[in-house]
This record gives sequence, structure tokens and C-alpha cells, in this order.
Amino acid sequence: MARDRFPLKLLLVGFGNVGRELARILVNRPDYPALKDLDVSVVGITTGSRKSLANERGVDLARALRELEEHGRFTPANPDYSELDSLGAAETLDYDVLVEMSPLSIANRGEPAISHVRTALERGRHAITCNKGPLAFGFRELRRLADERHAGFLYETTVMDGSPVFGMARSCMKGNTILKIDGILNSTSNYVLCAMEKGSSFAEGVAGAQAEQIAEADPSNDLDGWDASVKIVALANVLMGAGLEPNDVDRDSMADVTPERVREAKGRGFRIKMVCSAWREDGSVKASVKATEVSLGHPFALVDATGSIVRFETDLLGKILMTEEDPNITTTAYGVITDLYSLNEGIR
Amino acid sequence: MARDRFPLKLLLVGFGNVGRELARILVNRPDYPALKDLDVSVVGITTGSRKSLANERGVDLARALRELEEHGRFTPANPDYSELDSLGAAETLDYDVLVEMSPLSIANRGEPAISHVRTALERGRHAITCNKGPLAFGFRELRRLADERHAGFLYETTVMDGSPVFGMARSCMKGNTILKIDGILNSTSNYVLCAMEKGSSFAEGVAGAQAEQIAEADPSNDLDGWDASVKIVALANVLMGAGLEPNDVDRDSMADVTPERVREAKGRGFRIKMVCSAWREDGSVKASVKATEVSLGHPFALVDATGSIVRFETDLLGKILMTEEDPNITTTAYGVITDLYSLNEGIR
Repeated sequence: MARDRFPLKLLLVGFGNVGRELARILVNRPDYPALKDLDVSVVGITTGSRKSLANERGVDLARALRELEEHGRFTPANPDYSELDSLGAAETLDYDVLVEMSPLSIANRGEPAISHVRTALERGRHAITCNKGPLAFGFRELRRLADERHAGFLYETTVMDGSPVFGMARSCMKGNTILKIDGILNSTSNYVLCAMEKGSSFAEGVAGAQAEQIAEADPSNDLDGWDASVKIVALANVLMGAGLEPNDVDRDSMADVTPERVREAKGRGFRIKMVCSAWREDGSVKASVKATEVSLGHPFALVDATGSIVRFETDLLGKILMTEEDPNITTTAYGVITDLYSLNEGIR
Repeated sequence: MARDRFPLKLLLVGFGNVGRELARILVNRPDYPALKDLDVSVVGITTGSRKSLANERGVDLARALRELEEHGRFTPANPDYSELDSLGAAETLDYDVLVEMSPLSIANRGEPAISHVRTALERGRHAITCNKGPLAFGFRELRRLADERHAGFLYETTVMDGSPVFGMARSCMKGNTILKIDGILNSTSNYVLCAMEKGSSFAEGVAGAQAEQIAEADPSNDLDGWDASVKIVALANVLMGAGLEPNDVDRDSMADVTPERVREAKGRGFRIKMVCSAWREDGSVKASVKATEVSLGHPFALVDATGSIVRFETDLLGKILMTEEDPNITTTAYGVITDLYSLNEGIR
């Protein structure tokens, strides 16, 4: 049964950078005085290869963080140690909110994240997904299921880290029809574009992004425009009622953008940016990710390295932009916290 | 008694550009399909010198608009015609929401707007103010009164037109402490600065702003930094718990900024902007409005003419910016609509 109020018991599926930062914030709660009304405990943590923890009275998060730091995995010495896998935990533990933080798989069309979320919702529990797969490959089904079970299904972290893209559209644009969304939503490609402007080769740009831990070891999803495609599809599906999948996106790859082209554009007073767009056309919603020349006076031109921006065009509110500056892992983990507040207020 | 649900009956106090645009949107509701769940009627319109209308079954808004267009005032030929003044209407009509849209008076310390709002709240009715006076000169008292009477007190239009500055902070930043707010919040001074960059004199810039109906006939509140001071005080009082008044703001005037200074800065790659700031210092909140040099790579440098921007710095969400592009009177009127949606959801 979905519960309407704090306290909320969480099952964390996946415990990478975001999950660990969320745990760190919860452990260090006194550092954030405005969090005083957040009453959350973690009753389970599952990982792909680092084993799991479960304790219905609350997992010892400080110990969990320390153990990963020291051993790279949870160990049987931990009283909360568990052999449960993620799906098993989703099916059996007594949690209020499943927080899906496993890595996105485009090849597997959003699985196993979709199954984790579906399992929680079928049990009438809330689901928060930081994994974009459920929005890009299963949004309509999962949204309908959540509505049927009066369970919450939220996803603020999926686009622009913790910046309240979905929250702003949900809470602050009521009565508007969103006509168009565009933005710069992939940090790695933006970092590489900025590096090439300054004289780097493509490979040097990618290596720089990896050195600064912006890009993953395999950055191909970012560089081929898949990550950006998944994000614009998530926005279009949730906010414009689209039924798109990433394959439907008219998608440029960074392979189409040479350093020469970037520097030639710069010489003419333009920056090349990977611009994601979704718009209404002939009764449906279309989307694209395009290497686009923007003039230096355009707000998109100011988005450097890891920043991001989204612009909404609406019928009543006009054009409104949200920019995220210098995001970090705390910002991203905050996206989960804002979803927890939303659940507490009855937002589903 | 405050009512918790639509339908909402409105008393419009003042019927200038914003009030008339709100009426136009309500008359043309089918043009905005997402407004379908907004069930609002207007039971009274009061003005300073154009007489008033009152009808508990709903004022004929199309006729009200036509009459003002044709006669410049409401006439006794209108079946809704009334001799009630604003305070009398606030005291006696049966409305759910008083919408305060009379002009701001700094000399009168926010009166008579504060009295209109106070009267509504004392009767347990909701109040929406588009007039910044109640936030700059009476926020704590009115907020407390609203809370005591379980009435709503909302004000989205006061800063950045209809852009959801307050809504975003309220709905999307929960659990955060706002450490600092800054922004460009006055269109007239920004318009004049942009004109001076392009070679205009100060007087030519002001005349241009008046010709484009950005500046009022008497633009001194804008040019002396009072409008910006009132806005940053409103933000600081509502969002940072400050107890500031406009006089507490360390305030530059446009009189301090010569065309020579603007163009000299531009030659060095900087733009001069009137930057409003509020920040925490020694246990209290300070505020300033300062003519500030910003580099061309700074997001504030891109705010041209009538645009505006606000940046929040928080402990968990980091730095987040909201930019309003090309606002118009529809955007501003939308601020009232977003407050009506908030009331409908129980936001007080």
C-alpha cells in the first residue's frame, strides 16, 4: 500500500556515485538545516556486483559507506549483509519508495530498471527513478500503472541532475500548453566541444572529460548523441504527452563535428552546441539532437563544459529558461530528495 | 471563510494593463486548452478613477473590456455598474480571492494596497497581490494574518512578471537553504543601459523605453533603483526570512551611470547591469542594487532590454538560474493564474 506521509523507508537499487552521495547527505543531515522535516530511512541497498544490505529498522549508512570505501563491496561482517538481488529486494522487502539508480542500458531498452520500477508500482509502492530508461522506453505503461495503484512515480534526477526541470513544469506552468522544449543536456559532448574550441583534438577533448570524471570509461552513449536523445525523449514523453523512443530522434553524433568546423564557426562568432529539441508538428511531437551554431548572444552559447540549460516555450508563460551552473554530485543526489518531498506532499 | 476549491470568485482591485489582460484571457479561455480546469469568475472590479463593477453572478468581462476601450471608464449604462470604492468592495463583496492590482506607492509605504490585502485576509478570504507594496512594507504582518485565518496570500506576479520565481523556490527547492539571490529585475533601467551602449544619451534611452511602453510616464522609481530595491526586498523577505524595507537596500541610481562609463566598459568587454542582490551576513540578510560590470561570458550579460534573470545559490541544489525572455502582458497576467492554481491546490 502506498503511504501518504513521512517517514519514508527507501530501497536503494544501485549504489554508485549518486546513491552514495544521497547516503552521505542523510548521514550528515545536521549540515543541511532546511532538511529537518525529511524523515527518511534506508531499509535496503542492492548492487550489481557489490552485494546487498537489508535491515527493516534501517541500514547503517555510515558503515555502508565506510565498507565500500575500504573493501569495494559489502561484506558478511556487516550485520545488514544480504544476498538479495535487486529484483528480489524489490519483490520482497518492506519499503515505501524504490529508488532506481542502476546504470541505463539502451541496448536492453531500459531493462532491468523498468522491471524494478514496475515491481514496486505493482506492489503499490512509490518509485523514484534516476535511470532514464523507464522514461524513454516505458513511460506510458509505468505512469498508468502508478496511477492505477495510487503510487508515486517521479524522476527529477534524470534530466539536468537535481535541477527541478520536471518540478517546475509540474508546479509552475499549470494551465500552459508546452509548445516547444530545447536545451543542452549532455555534459560530455559539451565539454568536448568547448575543448575543441580551445584547440584540442576530439580525442584530447574526450580524454579531458574522462580525466575530470564527466565522461564514463565508455563515453560512446554521450558522444553518439544517445544520452541527449534519451533525455529529450524523457522530457517530451512526460511534459508533452509524446510516445517517443530514442530511435525516433533525428540524432547527430559528435563524430559529425570536427575541430576544424568548431573553430571555423568560432571565427565567425558562433559556438557549435549539441541542441536537443522537441516540438509539436502535425498533431504529434518530434524530437532532434543537432549540432547547431548558436551566436554568442544566445543563452545557449554561455553553457560551458558541464553546465546545462533548458528552454520551455508555452502559450501563456512565454519563453522561460532554466540554467544549471557547475553541477556536482550533491546537486544530482538532491534530485532524489526533491522527489521525496514531492511524495510527502501527495504528488504522484 | 477561505474556500479550498474551485470555483473561485475574484474581486479585481485595479483594472490596468494586467487586469485587463487577465480578463481577456478569461474571456478567450478556449484559446488556451490547458486552462480547462480553471473555474474562475469575477464578481467585482474596482478602479481608482474609472468607477467599479459588481455582480455576484459574475461581471460581464467582455462588456467591461469594451466599455473601457470605448469610454475610458465604466458607465451607469452597464448593469454591473457600482459606486463602490476598492476598500468598500474588499469589505463587503462576497469574493473568494482579492486580486490587488492597484499601483505601488513607495511614498505611502505600500498603502492602500496593504489595507486591501489585510481586509481580505481578516475576512478569511485569499489575497493575491501584483502590487509589490505588501511584500516590501508589510510581509510579516500579512503572512502571519493569512496563516492565522488559513487564507492564501500569494504574489507570483510581483517579481519577473509571470515567471515562477516564488513558485520554483516554494515547490522545487524544498530542503534547501537559500544562501544568496541575485538578478536583473528592472526592465526600464536595463533598457536604458542597452540603449546607452548603442550610443544613445540617457534621455534618449528613457524616451525609447517610454515609447515602447516599458517605462511609465514618471520613470523615476525605475531609474532611481526603487523598483529594483522593492523587488529584491520582496524576494529576501519571502524566501530568506528577511525583515527588510526598501530603504535598507544599498542602492545605486541610474543617475550614477553615464553613457561614457557604459561605453568605456563595453570597450573592455564588459556590460554594466543593475544587479540586485540579497545575501546572508552576520546572522541577517543584506541587500543591494548596484551598477555592476559583468563580463560577456556571464549569464547576466545576455539580459537585453526587457528580459530578466534571477540566480539562486543554495546549499543542496547549487546554483540555478531562471531567465525570462521577451515578456509581455500575457506573461504578467499569467502570474495571477498560477497563483489561482496554487490556491486550488491548497497552497496558502
